[in-house]
Amino acid sequence: MAERRWKFWGWGLEGSGLAPAEERRLFEFYRERIGFRDVERRPPPQVADIALRAPRLQPPASLAALCSAEPHQRLAHTYGKSFPEAVRIFAHDFSNAPDVVAQPGSEQDVGGLLEWATDAGAAVIPFGGGSSVVGGVEPEVGEDFRGTISLDLRGLDRVLEVDRASRAARIQGGILGPDLEAALRPQDLTLRHFPQSFEFSTLGGWIATRSGGHFATLYTHIDDFVESLRVVTPAGTLETRRLPGSGAGPSPDRLLIGSEGALGVITEAWLRLQDRPTFRAGAALAFDDFIAGAKAVRAVAQAGLYPSNLRLVDAEECRANGVNDGSYALLVLAFESADHPMDVWQARALELVQDHGGRLLPDASAAEAWRTAFIRMPYNREVQVPAGIIADTFETAITWDRLEAFHGAVMAATEQAIRKATGRPGLVTCRFTHVYPDGPAPYFSFHALGRQGALMEPWRHIKHAASEAIIAGGGTITHHHAVGRDHMPWYERQRPALFGAALAAAKAVLDPAGILNPGVLIPARAG
Amino acid sequence: MAERRWKFWGWGLEGSGLAPAEERRLFEFYRERIGFRDVERRPPPQVADIALRAPRLQPPASLAALCSAEPHQRLAHTYGKSFPEAVRIFAHDFSNAPDVVAQPGSEQDVGGLLEWATDAGAAVIPFGGGSSVVGGVEPEVGEDFRGTISLDLRGLDRVLEVDRASRAARIQGGILGPDLEAALRPQDLTLRHFPQSFEFSTLGGWIATRSGGHFATLYTHIDDFVESLRVVTPAGTLETRRLPGSGAGPSPDRLLIGSEGALGVITEAWLRLQDRPTFRAGAALAFDDFIAGAKAVRAVAQAGLYPSNLRLVDAEECRANGVNDGSYALLVLAFESADHPMDVWQARALELVQDHGGRLLPDASAAEAWRTAFIRMPYNREVQVPAGIIADTFETAITWDRLEAFHGAVMAATEQAIRKATGRPGLVTCRFTHVYPDGPAPYFSFHALGRQGALMEPWRHIKHAASEAIIAGGGTITHHHAVGRDHMPWYERQRPALFGAALAAAKAVLDPAGILNPGVLIPARAG
Repeated sequence: MAERRWKFWGWGLEGSGLAPAEERRLFEFYRERIGFRDVERRPPPQVADIALRAPRLQPPASLAALCSAEPHQRLAHTYGKSFPEAVRIFAHDFSNAPDVVAQPGSEQDVGGLLEWATDAGAAVIPFGGGSSVVGGVEPEVGEDFRGTISLDLRGLDRVLEVDRASRAARIQGGILGPDLEAALRPQDLTLRHFPQSFEFSTLGGWIATRSGGHFATLYTHIDDFVESLRVVTPAGTLETRRLPGSGAGPSPDRLLIGSEGALGVITEAWLRLQDRPTFRAGAALAFDDFIAGAKAVRAVAQAGLYPSNLRLVDAEECRANGVNDGSYALLVLAFESADHPMDVWQARALELVQDHGGRLLPDASAAEAWRTAFIRMPYNREVQVPAGIIADTFETAITWDRLEAFHGAVMAATEQAIRKATGRPGLVTCRFTHVYPDGPAPYFSFHALGRQGALMEPWRHIKHAASEAIIAGGGTITHHHAVGRDHMPWYERQRPALFGAALAAAKAVLDPAGILNPGVLIPARAG
Repeated sequence: MAERRWKFWGWGLEGSGLAPAEERRLFEFYRERIGFRDVERRPPPQVADIALRAPRLQPPASLAALCSAEPHQRLAHTYGKSFPEAVRIFAHDFSNAPDVVAQPGSEQDVGGLLEWATDAGAAVIPFGGGSSVVGGVEPEVGEDFRGTISLDLRGLDRVLEVDRASRAARIQGGILGPDLEAALRPQDLTLRHFPQSFEFSTLGGWIATRSGGHFATLYTHIDDFVESLRVVTPAGTLETRRLPGSGAGPSPDRLLIGSEGALGVITEAWLRLQDRPTFRAGAALAFDDFIAGAKAVRAVAQAGLYPSNLRLVDAEECRANGVNDGSYALLVLAFESADHPMDVWQARALELVQDHGGRLLPDASAAEAWRTAFIRMPYNREVQVPAGIIADTFETAITWDRLEAFHGAVMAATEQAIRKATGRPGLVTCRFTHVYPDGPAPYFSFHALGRQGALMEPWRHIKHAASEAIIAGGGTITHHHAVGRDHMPWYERQRPALFGAALAAAKAVLDPAGILNPGVLIPARAG
């Protein structure tokens, strides 16, 4: 059986997508809530529809076998999975397609490709699963380069070594989530890092973008799982020492985690693993009010119980995802352990939540429905864009003291921007994806009725207003989606200017010609 | 009552020190174990004994009130609390005393002092409590500077703001541990960070050196408590955004945490706090064999229970500290919570430890004895050095798979070095200070009989051998003592060379004239 290709225009594999029933439910919701009326939907593009610029780069013979200028490959490496990218995909705009897609099979290949790129004056965009929703992988690099190379790392896909005693493994950066978990399963180990993109994103991508996993508290961020890194840069290869902890100067790993392909290419990492959980406890609870739910979540987050799930989803977001009828905010509470039953932990957390007004639901079906909707969400964009619906998500983090005002201001600014941009009300919803003792990570979704063929400007207006509200309110421009090209204006306001200058100086050492993912994190140098 | 001065030649306040009974016990132990025989001890130096070079710097009138060249001040800012520093103190060698001790009362003062230092071509050594044991605060800066200024930050000693909802506070960098805790107590909050130096070290010092707290697992490192930072550099002031979490590029805080005064002066930080624990559970257990104990510790560390204490102390170290007669290794196990009884957690941990051969001791008296000894340890040096005893500690971290071989190699290398340097056997002991799921932080102590007036060379030989064994065995040259000047040769081997170059480039941005703590972390520039 032939392997199915990844869609170049949407999520996942060719032939996959929303089931008819899922699609019907979604549009029924849009009819009711934002006044959607059926339109003839644009079909997804075909390779033959798209005119690509002739490749501007010619790999040397020694690297030719790793390189492709085949149109489907170039199209599949032009974009991530953001809303504005989907708009351009359906508009057949692939003007920034990479000239070459390179697929290294080894770290040596990566080094050779970086050398060639330096010599050729080409920009290099490290590419994992291509699931960026922030413009992190588009070869939009300005006029300073003679061409662009998308460096697809999925050939570096092996678990190289497992240390059962320390529960750690040395793993190549290009491995996809399911392959990584499959390789660890025989040893009853798991990385237990499940971002929404899990099926179609890579370990190296998670590290480069400071990925947040599915779990709500404690060990969920990829940052905390990295024991050491191997990174190939144009200046050479860098390997950090494998250690459970160290106080020897600023952490080298922490400079590279979140570097978004702008400082080097993550080829290998030692990762901290966990035993596979066998004990579970869980419940679903209802709140009339999102902010009341937030107070309950805070109590649990500050109690030292460390639930695996503590997801608060507002009523409207529940409704949008078919979880309930929009009559209550849902709190999904869950505990997992590989060592001991979690009933005592669960009982105390339930007590705290109920003390704060949470109503225990008779069963966990709402939690199950949420989970299913969550996994299927990335497919929604494939039907929203061609139907003329503007829908996107953005996320942040804020301390508890500012949450209520911040949540109100961001919701209001986004709602108002939708009205201004589209001439009618839309829908803005919120959930918490991660919760810390000192504050939550609110995740917002919005839905607005646009006009086919004119989605970009209203989206830009809404995104701009939401980002401004986040930065003005003291939040972070991203909690786990990364910066990419889309968040640069706000990232530059968020980070201290002197840190930006220090980071640029570090880049000049590791990537002297500035060929790695230009325009991401470090603004292009003048002149 | 006049405030007691801090000793310039030892630990803590003038008039404090080991009680006669403590001292008798320690020397009894040395008689038995390393063949110590009574000698006439050198007395501690007096200010009048010491010839200081005339100050080479003259502060401008605008800063004169913040500056002192008074001899006791200069002496008290010449050294930290390391063994070789104590040797030089008792030898009356204060050749690197700072020319000026500056005591800013505000962030503005810090800026003004850095400006003056830049203009004057002076090096600046940020100084908190001066508890460095790695040569972190000695103004040993080479010949490139016209003088040295010790920047004593203890005037920045206030808790500025408390956010009860998020459990966080904005605190100045120069506050001492007890003052910080006293200021938080009325709100029932605690930073719950208790390094051994707690009484005589500062928040800014903890952050600059990646301090490890007393607790064994989870939230114990200062790194994890930092929500945001304010740092004054010669290039300007930098403030990171206060956030519970962020995925916006590499963490700015993590570049500054562990920067040991070489990148900037930490004037303020928002810190994550905790509720004051009210529930406690604890036990003391015995193991015949340290490595068997280590396996029990590993089981608990990997179970997701997060004990506040999980300290394994080898038999000889128990004996050295009067905890037991040296017949067993001690495991101190404890849990704390502000929210719920910990008996279920404790029961499961006990079960794991007993499954691994731990014998429950009838009471917690050994744990209590250990705790008392731990707090008093820093005073030992004051009597060891003048009696001609070479005694020091060093610490590291290593993954579990390598622990047994690593522990054996480091113990053997240190024992052998003692024999070679002193001509007779000494004593090397080990405990775990912190424990991670992927490995422990072993902490070694050694004791050897030296000759009064000739302690430096044998110490250097032993320290060198131990550091070589740590680096060769894959450990870190420091887990929480920091790098300072003493660890530079091994730090430079441990850190990737390209990271070192990137860090130097970052320093060149933040501290263009290289005046901040020269020689620490970033080697002095050639020329």
